[in-house]
Amino acid sequence: MANKFFDIIQSDLSKLEDALEEAVASPVETITDIGIHLIHAGGKRLRPAMFFLAAHCSKDFKLERAMPLAVALELIHMASLVHDDVLDSAMTRRGEATANAKWGNQLAILAGDYLFAKAFALVAEHGYSDRVQLQLSRLLTDLSAGELIQNKEIYKASCDIDEYYERIAMKTANFLAISCQLGGDVANLSEEEIQALYDYGYSVGMAFQLTDDLLDITGDEDTIGKPAGNDILQGIVTLPTIKALKSSPDKDKLLSIVTDSNMTRDMLHEAVEIVRASDGIEYTQQKVDEFLEQAKTVLPESIPEDIRTAYSMGADFISDRKF
Amino acid sequence: MANKFFDIIQSDLSKLEDALEEAVASPVETITDIGIHLIHAGGKRLRPAMFFLAAHCSKDFKLERAMPLAVALELIHMASLVHDDVLDSAMTRRGEATANAKWGNQLAILAGDYLFAKAFALVAEHGYSDRVQLQLSRLLTDLSAGELIQNKEIYKASCDIDEYYERIAMKTANFLAISCQLGGDVANLSEEEIQALYDYGYSVGMAFQLTDDLLDITGDEDTIGKPAGNDILQGIVTLPTIKALKSSPDKDKLLSIVTDSNMTRDMLHEAVEIVRASDGIEYTQQKVDEFLEQAKTVLPESIPEDIRTAYSMGADFISDRKF
Repeated sequence: MANKFFDIIQSDLSKLEDALEEAVASPVETITDIGIHLIHAGGKRLRPAMFFLAAHCSKDFKLERAMPLAVALELIHMASLVHDDVLDSAMTRRGEATANAKWGNQLAILAGDYLFAKAFALVAEHGYSDRVQLQLSRLLTDLSAGELIQNKEIYKASCDIDEYYERIAMKTANFLAISCQLGGDVANLSEEEIQALYDYGYSVGMAFQLTDDLLDITGDEDTIGKPAGNDILQGIVTLPTIKALKSSPDKDKLLSIVTDSNMTRDMLHEAVEIVRASDGIEYTQQKVDEFLEQAKTVLPESIPEDIRTAYSMGADFISDRKF
Repeated sequence: MANKFFDIIQSDLSKLEDALEEAVASPVETITDIGIHLIHAGGKRLRPAMFFLAAHCSKDFKLERAMPLAVALELIHMASLVHDDVLDSAMTRRGEATANAKWGNQLAILAGDYLFAKAFALVAEHGYSDRVQLQLSRLLTDLSAGELIQNKEIYKASCDIDEYYERIAMKTANFLAISCQLGGDVANLSEEEIQALYDYGYSVGMAFQLTDDLLDITGDEDTIGKPAGNDILQGIVTLPTIKALKSSPDKDKLLSIVTDSNMTRDMLHEAVEIVRASDGIEYTQQKVDEFLEQAKTVLPESIPEDIRTAYSMGADFISDRKF
């Protein structure tokens, strides 16, 4: 991701790759193999990036102090994707075979468990504060609870917008918020600054997930690496679809498709077309813009100018993202 | 489990049930439901029991200090069983429906993740030492690595006895060892005493797992709640079978069955009979006795007499167990 947003932290992110490989190295060969596969399958490293930026607010930035937490954040993210792919029976992610496709569900579930545990082990080994441990574990309880709410409601077309926001907050916004907050912790910022960074991460996270949900409808398979409407296929309705289910002239047809766990590709295609033609797209895009505006507004004046600019550009990057 | 072993900690264990229910209470109803189901499905609470006993070595025992760790240990155990049952597609455990049978694999996987995270959250909330956090996270990396080794080798009849011991050490012995060790930590025992309690837990844990593996062959469905030979059916060879694969006159027949992922009930029955008739049973029982003898030997003289007696009875209890 060549973007000026990352200039300040380019070297950290590049060293992160080595640190991740070190973290997954295990006497148990399969663990190392799965770990390396996941690392090489790529990813935006958004959570470590958000974290490193906040950590750089201190002039006294020490990479060796920041790195274990950056690794822990990415390991938790990787582990949750591994379990996600088992849940969805996904065979590819970002064009690469998923862990379950390559090693089977059983080893993928266990590898995910291992990576969660390894994240906590890393943090414990490096003696961070109880608050750091607490935030990291709450992040994971929220993450799994958010996924659980989502999976419980599949093919039910739950259209409560507040519940939708709550679910994406638990799944994504909270994770980015805590990534920023932990960076602020490491940089010894004031409570107010840390809270502001948390709020920034939260808004950016909401925008990020909304964009993800939007791209799932508007993107094409070549760009997003999965067929358009994949969420609908999995029985999950997101904001564009929820809006379409309320306002589209074809809402009855749409409802009958999204609640059908045996939907065919043709039905899926029709559902995607209905959502695309509805005001759900514009409505969601507007919400993305509102969250990003909000994110920029809460950035504290007191943090270094270059970090503030980088965070601001990070928000712009999310609004422009196409994958 | 009415046994004098538990007298000292009977009241702790009874309060543990409430604390567990409190720990799984969540605004997300499904999490609470799954949690309560798992708690009510029972279990020996062996890890909290081992932990509480060690914690009672201090005259200054404070239940409110010990309880969060006891809950964390049992939550990690419960979560690993939930994932185990998904891996094995098990429909019942201890005569009760498994979480995957009742809520499906997806929610069961996520509920397991939630419980792991909740265990770490509990510990972080109560401000234990980094060492406690570290032991708990290492326990979980070992546990998942041990399960992973086991699952990687299914239907391969891996007969290396050292590898078998390593696997059950990671899965079980280490867990009981750390349960004892953490109790010693809470009781502020000396490093030597804590190490001795760790060693006791380790040996007892090895004996416990060996007994489990033995009962899987010698037990009947009414007593152990699953058909005899369930491990073999899952493609897992344990010490009695490993020994039989080396020494039984029918070892070729046995090998052909345990490496067949399509084995029928009749084939399984035949395999179980071959192992039962082999010297694998006596050999394993002898190893159980050796580990239990070892466990009793390492118990430190310096800890209170009643705790030493209780631990010693705990070892006897394992050697006598029939389920």
